[in-house]
Parts: sequence; structure tokens; C-alpha cells
Amino acid sequence: MSSACCSNGMACFKPRLEVNSTAGKATNSVSLRRTHNFTAFGKQNLFGGSRFVSFSTFGSQCRNRAKFSPMAVGVRGKEGKPITRAESEESAKGKKIMVIGGDGYCGWATALHLSKQGYQVAIVDSLVRRLFDQQLGIDTLTPIVSIQKRIKRWNQISGKQLDLLVGDICDFDFLAEAFKSFEPEAVVHFGEQRSAPYSMIDRGRAVYTQHNNVIGTLNVLFAIKEFSPECHLVKLGTMGEYGTPNIDIEEGYITINHNGRTDTLPYPKQASSFYHLSKVHDSHNIAFTCKAWGLRATDLNQGVVYGVMTPETAMHEELINRLDYDGVFGTALNRFCVQAAVGHPLTVYGKGGQTRGYLDIRDTVQCVELAIANPANRGEFRVFNQFTEQFSVNDLAKAVTKAGEKLGLEVRAISVPNPRVEAEEHYYNAKHTKLTELGLQPHFLSDGLLDSLLNFAMKYSDRVDMARIMPAVSWKKIGVKPRTDASEVKL
Amino acid sequence: MSSACCSNGMACFKPRLEVNSTAGKATNSVSLRRTHNFTAFGKQNLFGGSRFVSFSTFGSQCRNRAKFSPMAVGVRGKEGKPITRAESEESAKGKKIMVIGGDGYCGWATALHLSKQGYQVAIVDSLVRRLFDQQLGIDTLTPIVSIQKRIKRWNQISGKQLDLLVGDICDFDFLAEAFKSFEPEAVVHFGEQRSAPYSMIDRGRAVYTQHNNVIGTLNVLFAIKEFSPECHLVKLGTMGEYGTPNIDIEEGYITINHNGRTDTLPYPKQASSFYHLSKVHDSHNIAFTCKAWGLRATDLNQGVVYGVMTPETAMHEELINRLDYDGVFGTALNRFCVQAAVGHPLTVYGKGGQTRGYLDIRDTVQCVELAIANPANRGEFRVFNQFTEQFSVNDLAKAVTKAGEKLGLEVRAISVPNPRVEAEEHYYNAKHTKLTELGLQPHFLSDGLLDSLLNFAMKYSDRVDMARIMPAVSWKKIGVKPRTDASEVKL
Repeated sequence: MSSACCSNGMACFKPRLEVNSTAGKATNSVSLRRTHNFTAFGKQNLFGGSRFVSFSTFGSQCRNRAKFSPMAVGVRGKEGKPITRAESEESAKGKKIMVIGGDGYCGWATALHLSKQGYQVAIVDSLVRRLFDQQLGIDTLTPIVSIQKRIKRWNQISGKQLDLLVGDICDFDFLAEAFKSFEPEAVVHFGEQRSAPYSMIDRGRAVYTQHNNVIGTLNVLFAIKEFSPECHLVKLGTMGEYGTPNIDIEEGYITINHNGRTDTLPYPKQASSFYHLSKVHDSHNIAFTCKAWGLRATDLNQGVVYGVMTPETAMHEELINRLDYDGVFGTALNRFCVQAAVGHPLTVYGKGGQTRGYLDIRDTVQCVELAIANPANRGEFRVFNQFTEQFSVNDLAKAVTKAGEKLGLEVRAISVPNPRVEAEEHYYNAKHTKLTELGLQPHFLSDGLLDSLLNFAMKYSDRVDMARIMPAVSWKKIGVKPRTDASEVKL
Repeated sequence: MSSACCSNGMACFKPRLEVNSTAGKATNSVSLRRTHNFTAFGKQNLFGGSRFVSFSTFGSQCRNRAKFSPMAVGVRGKEGKPITRAESEESAKGKKIMVIGGDGYCGWATALHLSKQGYQVAIVDSLVRRLFDQQLGIDTLTPIVSIQKRIKRWNQISGKQLDLLVGDICDFDFLAEAFKSFEPEAVVHFGEQRSAPYSMIDRGRAVYTQHNNVIGTLNVLFAIKEFSPECHLVKLGTMGEYGTPNIDIEEGYITINHNGRTDTLPYPKQASSFYHLSKVHDSHNIAFTCKAWGLRATDLNQGVVYGVMTPETAMHEELINRLDYDGVFGTALNRFCVQAAVGHPLTVYGKGGQTRGYLDIRDTVQCVELAIANPANRGEFRVFNQFTEQFSVNDLAKAVTKAGEKLGLEVRAISVPNPRVEAEEHYYNAKHTKLTELGLQPHFLSDGLLDSLLNFAMKYSDRVDMARIMPAVSWKKIGVKPRTDASEVKL
């Protein structure tokens, strides 16, 4: 096994060293489409050509080479045998993967990872996530550049081409053109409004979230049926679909013995925001189309993702991933690290006993790759629980406090009134063996990762808007009046 | 107990007699609203004033007085004691009920029934169901008049006022106005696209169905939260949400013992059309809002409804209910009766072992009334399975064949290729005790009802379009191309 971050003829980033990223030659890596829905990107590169970039915090993640090698994971064939890395790269070569939502937090990291693995990747994105930031007056901690610049830089660094199709999958004419022109063999679908608090801001956002997510996914299902019936849908669901039942959570299905009879049925869903509910709706819709039309799909019920860097996003500052810390899009752990870095108390909602599944973003990209390399069968609706460890919010607060103190930060956690409606103390035991069986090599939460993430947050701490850290949306207070002013979006 | 159809000072219809329906005086019973979304109705009555109407087929339904008395059902208070009819009427008096979708098959019958019981009823309807008929070139067997004429006639016959608010609940401005002006104490929500085949015609109809149903219901939930938080939502779901599991179907929830632990969770859903799926989505959304906002809701998972007359719709030909027999909106039993009446073979889909719950439309109106009279508690999401008997398609074909032959009809059943994707032989045992516990007195399927329904179909047989009887929509062949020509809507 080799370390993906320091090989392959790409710029090698050593811990805490300045690195000159001049590998690759600039070419126009973006396909311009003539369809009216596709937006051409600007050709200027405001940051100029190659430049020195300090990615000092990446070092601590890179030290454990065995862990940090998503390229080296065993991908198993239908016979269940792990295939070699060479075989994996061979099978990836040229395989066309459409990454819907490829400009987002998980999507961007995944698109680059798949591109590096040899897949031919097209990003489909409406870029509306960037509009949400503008409308709410929030911003990623990290200074991300435009998708067009990102793609150009990736081409310069890696020599790989990424297609970009800018449009809304709720617009079927656009999506149909995208399918017909790109002819994907797999579609990775991250293209949804992904924030529970956003879906609870006001009626408009609740309706937007369910419409956008449910209809967008319906359109993807129809596009696959019509244009690429062999195409494998890899859909991002969420562990939040299950809620917090008092029994073990299984992966998608549960065998029930009832009144002397037995059946294996979809696991009951108890989602707790309009966002989480939209994913429940998607899961039901996808399951039906697998049965009725023989589509092949994998629903990745993902836990809360933390971390910001993958080997690919770390290659250049213009490839940097977004990192949300605000009360609407920020998620636990990432938000705690930013809070610790800027001297803001860690905001534990309520009692802090809320337990969920978590995973490193480097495992997100691994899991998606594993799903693609081991596709579902025709007619199969497969569900994987995509996380590596369970933590309570209090567990995370303690870990961040400890890691922060090691770096000389004064960290304290406070309990704030829980803006959500959720159990704050509950049983939680969710299974997650299917991806491990396919070869997932987890990056467990480590002091190194926390140290890296805290350093990262400290580096960009001047970009933090302290007024945006507190929880901003109440599950109970949501109303029908549109909250048009960003300043209104607070408790 | 008295017979509702032959008392109350209203016109009394005796079996097979011509009846002069002159009770009540014509007044304008429709509230005209100034909101731009409300459409005023025409004041002309093309059918003139009172006229003789022959409702001969109603007789056989009326003979069993004990069964045919929805007004006399026991409505139980919180203490579980059945309350008297007088008490029931007293509690109904003036209570404001909004019936969304009140121009439809179940909605119209329910609106009249509730109005007769003393409730103050407002019908909210976009009338889009009538547009579907126009667009697909289909029509109800029965000659229904406009909603405005229906309401005027009801006022003339009964002396009761029905408000009419014409608009689309997906338009929140309209719905908000409707809530603010009417201030409902309960909302009965039939206002959804209700045909599984319609949702499977093409991508556009699939998307329309899910958007219309899910967003409409979300709007209703928000309107209740904002304007009438005490209001009880009585939502029409479907038994089709459950699919055909190999274990007993419970009412909404199932207690699961798993790995040594126990929890009572939402019953797993396996819907089999985009329409049925939309109801699954609704159920999840409603359950969440009951928990998060303390709304009170009853989900009536209704079986297949048959029959056409209720005591109220039978009072005048202009109060007649719609009866759909076509391949898109026609449902089993009703469709079989029309087929038998016009000499068309009964179309059994596939093997005919498909078993479902069924109920008489007179029980639909009873069940809704029982739910209203016994509201859910704040925060409670209650699920009732609303049907009275289980039948397989073959059972129904046999029953209609037998009843038809008694009337001298030559009836034969044929198996046609199943346009749906569904199990044709399966276990099916669904619980349905909760409405019975509240006092439901079922109208079981009888020779009398079949005789009545066949006679009804024979009366209007000249309105049947034979070309519209066969199944018209294939679950597997649905595509993205809009089917704009009605003649295209066939297998």
C-alpha cells in the first residue's frame, strides 16, 4: 500500500512545508455545452498561475500513512475477493461518473477523489449552495474559489479533466441534456439542500427543501430509466432518516417477527426536520423505481461528516474544500473546532446526550468509491449506513476541549437551549458493516485529526463572523412569514 | 336508531319511486371571497328549479335501515362512552369543518354528510380533478353538475349553507386567506391527486402528483400551525402505503422486538406508485409536525372505496356523486359494475389474487365524522386503517358476476396483462379495529349494494365510453415524454 497524498507524480505536500504546486499545465478542463442551461465559466484566473501555498495543518493527517490511503482500499468483485489497487484503477479507467452537487462540501471532495482514481467525472451543480451563503449573509471558513477556477486548477495540478454542467436537476430539460451528452455509468447524487436548520427557517425554505430534493431525485430516476438504464445511482441519504429508535438500527431493512410470521421490511423512518424527511421520501421513491423499473441504486445513509481535507483538496489552496461553522450549515465537530479556535464557547444543544454516527470526509470519498466499484444489481435497492464511529455531542465537546488545550487554547463548552426537537438522552446503536465488508479502511477520530482541524480553523480564524456561530433556527418557532433579512435568521 | 335517509324533514326517497325534491328554498349558499384566488361561480341553474328525479337504484341500499344510518353511529367521548345521537348533533352544531377536495368522489359525499349533521362546512377545492377529465378525454359515469350548482341545490334541499373557496392549496396565499376567513376547527384533507395510474402516465404527472400532494399537505400543516393550532387535521391516507408485507398490517405503528430490545415504530411503508408514495411522504411529514409543533392529526389509511350514493347525494340528481370507471381513475368493484352493465368483460389484472381492504362510501363519510367527533390530542399522530372488509380482485369479479347474472346480465371476467408492478398472490391481513371501537357501523358488501350499483350503472350506460375501460397506463412503460394527446393514454 502506498500513500495517496505523496505519490502519483503530483505535487507532494510535506508536513508544515511551503510547497510549490506547479505540476500540470493549464488547459481548459471544462466542457462548454451549447444547451441554454449550461453556463460558461470565466477564463480569468484572479490568483494567477502557480503560487506558494502553505498547507501546514495537513501534516498531522498525513503522518499515518496506513490510514490515509483511500486509493489503496480493497475493492471487492462480485465474488467477494478484494481486487488489487492496479485492478481497481483499471476498472475505474474512463468509467463515467456524474457527480451531482459536485461543488459542495462532500461533492467536491468526491469529484476530485474519483477523478484522481481514473474515473471520468462530470460535475452537475446549480451552484445554489453559494447563493444560500449570499442570501443568509454567511460564508465558509475557507476561501473557496469559483467552481470554474477550482476545475481549472485541478486540471493544472493533476492533468485530469473534470466536466462541468451548470444547471438545476429540477429542470428536466437540463438534466436530460446532461445525461444524453455525458452518458454516465454511475451517478453520485449529492445535489440536495442538505441543512436541517435551513429547512426549518420558514415555510418557504421547508417547501423549497422538499420540492428541490424530492423532485430533483425523481428527475434523476426518470433520466436513468430513459437514458442510462444500466446506470448505478449512488444516492446520499442520511442516518437521520432513522431517528433515534429504542432498538438497534439496521442497514436499511429489518427482519420482523410478528404474530407468528416473518418478513424483512424497510427499516421504519422517524426523521426530525423537513430536510431529513426529504431524504426519507427519496429513499421510498428510489426503492419503488428499483422494484418497478429494475433500476440499480445504493442509498448511503451517511452520518455527520467532519474534517475538511482530502489528499486531493490539499494539493492547492484553490482546491480547498468549504468548511461551514455557522448555525445553519455548520455541523457538530467542525463547528466545535472553529468555536475553539476563535475562543467561542462550544455550543452543546441541551443535555448533549444526542448520539449520532460520524465519519471523516476522507471516508466519505472512500465509501462512494466503494459503492461505485461494487455496483448494486439491476432491481436492487441497497442501503449502507455510512459512518465509522458513534459519538454523543458531549463526547465531541470533551474531545475538542482536550485537543484545544493541548494547542494552548482556552476551551469551554456551554449548554444552549436546544433549537431542535430531539431526544437529548437515548439509546443508539446503529449497524455499519456493509461498507467495511466492501473494504472500507476507516479514519477514526484521532488527536491528529483534531489537531489538524483546529490548526486549520486557527489559520482562517480572521474569516469567522462571531455573530453567525450560535444556533439560528428554531424547530418550534418556524412560521409562514418569509425571513428575507439575513439578520432575522436567529433564535 | 332512526334511518337517516328517510327522516329529518328532508325529501324522503322510497325504493323505486319518483320523488319530488322541493324541500328548501333556493338561496345563494356560496360565500364569495374577494381574494383574487377565489373564483365566483355562475348564478344560472341550467336545470331550472325543482324537478322529478328517479333514483330507483337507491332503494335496495335503503332497505337495511339498521345499516344505513351513519347519523346514528355511536360517537364516543374521551371517557369511551358512546354519546347519543342528540349529543352528537349538539357537538356538531356550528363546528367549522374545512373539507379540502370537497368536489371529489369522497370529498363531496363527506361535505354533504357533515353539513347534514350540523357542521358548518367550507369546501376548498381547485376543481383540477374536472380538468383531468377534460385533458384525458374521460368523464364520470354520472352527470355531475358544477360545484356551484351542487352547492346551490344542497342549500335548496337541506336549508344548509356550504361555503365554497376555489383555489389551490399549493398556493399558500390562497390557503392562508381560506384559514383566516373560515377559521376551521377541523380540516378534512382529500385535496390530492388520488389516482395511482394518473401518477404513472408520464414523468410530468409523476412529478405533479408528488409536488401537488406533498407541498399541498405541507402548506396545510403550516396553515394549521400559524392560524389554527388547535385545529384537528383529518388526512386521507391510503392502505396502499403499507404494500403487501408478509406479516399482519397494524394501524400505523408496530411494536418490534429486536436483539433483546423493544420499540413501537411507524409501520414500514412499501408503496407501489408515485401516488401511493406521495401519501407515504405525507404521513412522515405529518408525524413530524405533530411531534415538533404539537399539531393533532388523524391519518385515515383508507381502502378502496366502492358505491356511489349516500343519503345526501341521493336527495337530488344535482347532488349526484361522480363515478369513475375508466382505466385511469376507475377503481375495482365500481369499474367491474360498470363493465358488467355495458357488457364489457370484467378486467382482472393478472392472476387476480391481489387482496386489499374495501369499504362502502357510506362508511367513508361515517369514518371521517367519527374522526372529527373524537379528535386526536395535541401532539398526537393517530393512524386508523379505514376499511371494513378484505377482498381479492377475483373475489370481486365473482361477486359482480353473480349479482349481474341475477339481473339477467351476461357477465364474464378476463385476465388482462397487469399494467402495475405488484404481487398477484400474497399474504394480506390488515387490522382495522380503531374506527370500529369509535362506533363505526359497517355497511358490508351485500347483494343489495351490488344490485343497486349495477342498476345505477345500467341507468347511465349510454354515457360509457367503451374505449376508456381498459387499463391505460403501464407502470413499466412510463417515460419522460409528455403524453399530451388523450388517445396516447393507453397501454
